Amino acid sequence: MKWCRFSTGGNIAYGIIEGDQVIEVEGTPFDTYTKTSNVQPLSSVKLEVPVIPPTFYAAGINYPEHITWAAAKVGTQPDIPKAADVGYRAVNALVPTEHPIEVPKDAHEDLQYEGELVAVIGKKCRNVTEDQALDYVLGLTIGNDVSERTWQKNDRTMWRAKNTDTFKPMGPWIVTGLDPDDLTCKVTLSGRVVEEYALSTAIFGVRAFISRMSQYLTLYPGDVLWMGTEGATENMKDGDVIEIEISDIGTLRNTVVWGK
Amino acid sequence: MKWCRFSTGGNIAYGIIEGDQVIEVEGTPFDTYTKTSNVQPLSSVKLEVPVIPPTFYAAGINYPEHITWAAAKVGTQPDIPKAADVGYRAVNALVPTEHPIEVPKDAHEDLQYEGELVAVIGKKCRNVTEDQALDYVLGLTIGNDVSERTWQKNDRTMWRAKNTDTFKPMGPWIVTGLDPDDLTCKVTLSGRVVEEYALSTAIFGVRAFISRMSQYLTLYPGDVLWMGTEGATENMKDGDVIEIEISDIGTLRNTVVWGK
Repeated sequence: MKWCRFSTGGNIAYGIIEGDQVIEVEGTPFDTYTKTSNVQPLSSVKLEVPVIPPTFYAAGINYPEHITWAAAKVGTQPDIPKAADVGYRAVNALVPTEHPIEVPKDAHEDLQYEGELVAVIGKKCRNVTEDQALDYVLGLTIGNDVSERTWQKNDRTMWRAKNTDTFKPMGPWIVTGLDPDDLTCKVTLSGRVVEEYALSTAIFGVRAFISRMSQYLTLYPGDVLWMGTEGATENMKDGDVIEIEISDIGTLRNTVVWGK
Repeated sequence: MKWCRFSTGGNIAYGIIEGDQVIEVEGTPFDTYTKTSNVQPLSSVKLEVPVIPPTFYAAGINYPEHITWAAAKVGTQPDIPKAADVGYRAVNALVPTEHPIEVPKDAHEDLQYEGELVAVIGKKCRNVTEDQALDYVLGLTIGNDVSERTWQKNDRTMWRAKNTDTFKPMGPWIVTGLDPDDLTCKVTLSGRVVEEYALSTAIFGVRAFISRMSQYLTLYPGDVLWMGTEGATENMKDGDVIEIEISDIGTLRNTVVWGK
C-alpha cells in the first residue's frame, strides 16, 4: 500500500495511491481513515512531504564505506559506531520531491547528497524487541540528507550544515509491507549513477535502532528514522538534479538551486 | 500575560492565567483565540507542557562558568563557543511541572539538573536582526535539561543522556512581554539553593540565537529555544525535588523517581 500527502483545493490531505490515481482519505494512516470520492490522477496533484514528524531521528554514520571515506577525507581513523546511538534533524528543513534544494549564497562548494532509507513509525512504541520492531513501522520512504561539509566540519553542531531550510528532501510517498533488508538504494546525480548499495549492509538496521531507542524513549506515530548513507558522496552544483531511488519504493527527485 | 496549557474534562486546551484563575480559550496563542466561559481555580487544574514544539532547539553550552566546570571535570581546556550554533532536543522527553522525572534502572548516579530559560517562538521568522528578534517571541518559560553525564560522555550522541522520556521538564507556563536580560534563574535541590545566575551572562543571548538561526532556517510558531545553564551541577537522587525558578516567570518543580 502506498500512502502520500498531497495538496488538493488549497488543503493538504493524506491519500492512497492505486495505480496512477490518488484517492483522498479523511483521517490519517496513523489512526482511522475513510476513502473519499475525491480521486485524481497522480500526475495532476502536488505531492507534499509524506509526514511531518513529531521527532525527526537520524542514524547518522551507519554504513562502513561511508565511514571509511569520511575519515580518510579528514585524515583520521574510521570510527565505527559501537551502538545504535541515534541523532536528530529538524522539521523546518523538510521539502517534498520536486521541490528545489535552495542553497544559501554563503554555502561552500562541498554541498553533498546522502541517499537514505527512512522508516516511518506507525504506532506508539516502548520497550520492543528487534523481532517486534517492524510491527511498529507504518512503512518506508526515502530521504536526502543534504550536507554542507565545510559547516559540518567547522560548526559546533550540524544545525546549518544539515538543517538549513530545504536541506531535507523526503518522499515521494510511504510504502507499507516492505522489509528494509530486501531493498537497494541508487543515487543518480544529473543522470550519472554515483552510488548503489544494499540497505542490508547498514551497521545497525531499522530493527536494531527501533528496539534500542525504545528501551529509553517512546516512539510516536509519524516519527521518522533516517538510516544513514553508504559510500563516498560528491558535490552538487547549481542546476544539478539529484535522484534517490529505492527499489519497491520509488524515486525522490530534487533540483539544486544555488544562491537564493 | 500568562499562557498555559491544561487538562480540562479529558481534553487539553490553552488557557490564560489571571490571578489565581485559569480562563480556557478556544484557539491558540499563536493564532486567533477567544476566551470561553470555562474559568477554574489554577490550583484545581492539571498543567500540561505549555507548548509542543514543531522543532526543539537547545543552545547547549552557553554560560562561561558551566563551560569551565564541565571542562575541568573531564580534564580538557574550556572550549568557549565562537558562534551561536544551536543543537536539538526531542519532544518525547517533555513533561510538565509536577510530573516525575522517571530515571531508567540502568542510569548512573551522575544524573543532573540544568536550569534554563526557554524562549517560545510566536510568529514565523526568517532573516531577522537582533533588534527585531524579540518581536517574534511569544514569551518565556523554564526548562530543566536533565542530563545523565555518563551516557553524555560515552555515547556517540546525547540521545538517551538528555532525551530519555521525562528528561525534559518544561513549564509551568509562558509569560509574555519580558526581556530575558532582566531575569535571574535560581535552582533549588530538595530545599537547598545550588545555583543562582543572571540570564544576561549568556555568551549568546536570545536575540543573538534567533537572528543567527533565522539567516539559514525558518522558525515556526511554537518552536522552543532552550538557552543553556550556568555553573556546576550536582547529582539528583531518588526522591529529590528539583525546582527551577526564574524571576517574573515562576517555578518549574519536579520530583526524581529512580528505577521505574
